[in-house]
Amino acid sequence: MTHEAGIPLGIRFKLLSDTPQDSAAQVVHDVVIGDYRDLETLRAFARGCDVITFDHEHVPTEHLRALEADGIPVRPGPDALVHAQDKGVMRAKLDAIGVPCPRHRIVSDPADVAAFAAEGEGFPVVLKTVRGGYDGKGVWVVRSAEEAAEPFRAGVPVLAEEKVDFVRELAANVVRSPHGQAVAYPVVESRQVDGVCDTVIAPAPDLDAELALRAEELALTIAKELGVVGHLAVELFQTRDGRVLVNELAMRPHNSGHWSQDGAITSQFANHVRAVLDLPLGDPRPRARWTVMVNVLGGDFPDMYPAYLHCMARDPQLKIHMYGKDVKPGRKVGHVNTYGDDLDDVLERARHAAGYLRGTITE
Amino acid sequence: MTHEAGIPLGIRFKLLSDTPQDSAAQVVHDVVIGDYRDLETLRAFARGCDVITFDHEHVPTEHLRALEADGIPVRPGPDALVHAQDKGVMRAKLDAIGVPCPRHRIVSDPADVAAFAAEGEGFPVVLKTVRGGYDGKGVWVVRSAEEAAEPFRAGVPVLAEEKVDFVRELAANVVRSPHGQAVAYPVVESRQVDGVCDTVIAPAPDLDAELALRAEELALTIAKELGVVGHLAVELFQTRDGRVLVNELAMRPHNSGHWSQDGAITSQFANHVRAVLDLPLGDPRPRARWTVMVNVLGGDFPDMYPAYLHCMARDPQLKIHMYGKDVKPGRKVGHVNTYGDDLDDVLERARHAAGYLRGTITE
Repeated sequence: MTHEAGIPLGIRFKLLSDTPQDSAAQVVHDVVIGDYRDLETLRAFARGCDVITFDHEHVPTEHLRALEADGIPVRPGPDALVHAQDKGVMRAKLDAIGVPCPRHRIVSDPADVAAFAAEGEGFPVVLKTVRGGYDGKGVWVVRSAEEAAEPFRAGVPVLAEEKVDFVRELAANVVRSPHGQAVAYPVVESRQVDGVCDTVIAPAPDLDAELALRAEELALTIAKELGVVGHLAVELFQTRDGRVLVNELAMRPHNSGHWSQDGAITSQFANHVRAVLDLPLGDPRPRARWTVMVNVLGGDFPDMYPAYLHCMARDPQLKIHMYGKDVKPGRKVGHVNTYGDDLDDVLERARHAAGYLRGTITE
Repeated sequence: MTHEAGIPLGIRFKLLSDTPQDSAAQVVHDVVIGDYRDLETLRAFARGCDVITFDHEHVPTEHLRALEADGIPVRPGPDALVHAQDKGVMRAKLDAIGVPCPRHRIVSDPADVAAFAAEGEGFPVVLKTVRGGYDGKGVWVVRSAEEAAEPFRAGVPVLAEEKVDFVRELAANVVRSPHGQAVAYPVVESRQVDGVCDTVIAPAPDLDAELALRAEELALTIAKELGVVGHLAVELFQTRDGRVLVNELAMRPHNSGHWSQDGAITSQFANHVRAVLDLPLGDPRPRARWTVMVNVLGGDFPDMYPAYLHCMARDPQLKIHMYGKDVKPGRKVGHVNTYGDDLDDVLERARHAAGYLRGTITE
């Protein structure tokens, strides 16, 4: 999707991909197959690139520092990216710059988890390995010290967090360039199912204007203080008492910003590319009153083609984004965007299409 | 641009390109370098493709018939495409189906041109070689039999046409699928400079609703009667006496439809891909009151980069589309789209950006 956004800008990508089957590897011209965990692979790949960016956070921080030492601009740089790679580092930094977070601390064993619970509101407690988690992986909600053994097995430090009593989840997406220009997308509502993003509504319905502004300012502050270059997604909890607390950070185009492909003047992908290349940023404002994104998950039927035809025929305004992935149950294989003036209608159209593609809606 | 539109649909292209420097060859994953005029190259390329389509009309008709005989779907097919390849065949067919055209006939030599002039309104007369012309090439406006020698030198049949006293040029863009579904984009005004498209305004300002409808119906009729599959652009003259006459046909995404990338719900490129694959077509309606496209021509400065930065900084809503081509004076190297409610403002922004990129505007 970043390549797609780069084409009209005249930007050419060179891609380092694990396998030829990866989504991007199917559509980018210049593809190198290799392991991003291997420094020599990265070094050979980086030669001749004007700048390096990522579509995930898993490239080892020390490898990124080595590339920088070789003179290759890395954006976002390792000093920023480490906050999206390591939840312990992220929490410490957000505390230091005064950004509100759920109560948290690194815990050493199940007894320490019980102590953490006793220091605050008691169980349940959320446990996260500080590295390697995504889409609900590496996250546990435990109701007792006895349930808390599992997270410690990987030998990675474990972060305990209070289970926030939230009204809903929001996301504030901003983009920042090397020379410090920044733009903020409207704050969106993000609905999760089983720890995976399901639906995003832009802008977040019935969001108090002052709270929306506070969320955008928080995201812009984080981008600046952490030295982020490119897209920053700040996942937030909206609490019952009217606060926003930071849940997670991502430093790349993010699922909560996919609506912008069809719903904003400039998409998150285009602005990420513009920021990474230090080009002036595009207008992030919405083009429609409401835009809704719903993820398409794989269902029980490997052949989505009949459903794909049906959805296009049923709704000629539907915007489909498929990733060229084999269908496996529960796997994100695409998303749909809809937009319009009537939120109920826009939501219904997106949900119907995503459900029909998955096979959970059959008419 | 067709590849870009195919990415979200999950469509993968294999590209036959003259050189690795061609715009599409820089961004498509699977590129074969070869000559489209060589049948064996075409045959080898076509193996394994679900369907073949084009971004120009120059593949020899007989080669397309050979591919069809091999069992490869060619869309648009040779029986349709010949009308965009040969202006003599096109005029004869449009006459046969009752579509209004400028007065015309095939002429044999300069004396015959004088006879053609005398049969109607006299000189000037427009002469066109029936094959091989585009962007003003292969077209002459002659004021006497003495001036009419040049077009006959190539040994290609020459078509004479009356020089229409038009108010302006319009274009009606439609897309038709193999099962006969068709959609019509709003009729646009197309302004030419030196025979090359310069500015397109969507929809055409102050166009009588009935005339607009007639133009759309004409284009839909032509698509149906000629068996077009995919995008059909019908270039039209709007005459002083309130008629529309067909000037040229193109059977592929067309410069007069580039506005649709940012101005329509579904772009011409996405609908061309959908038609060629017999997928249901997307909604062609505009997203904005006005959309303006201005072509970016190469100027005297080979390095457009400073101007590119300036234009993005000046207008964060500007949509730039660069083709990755080396800059040569007068060469189409990209286009810009702008949209909004105020036509004067939208026109000014697009013209400023295109002029600045070319180097003819310096502030």
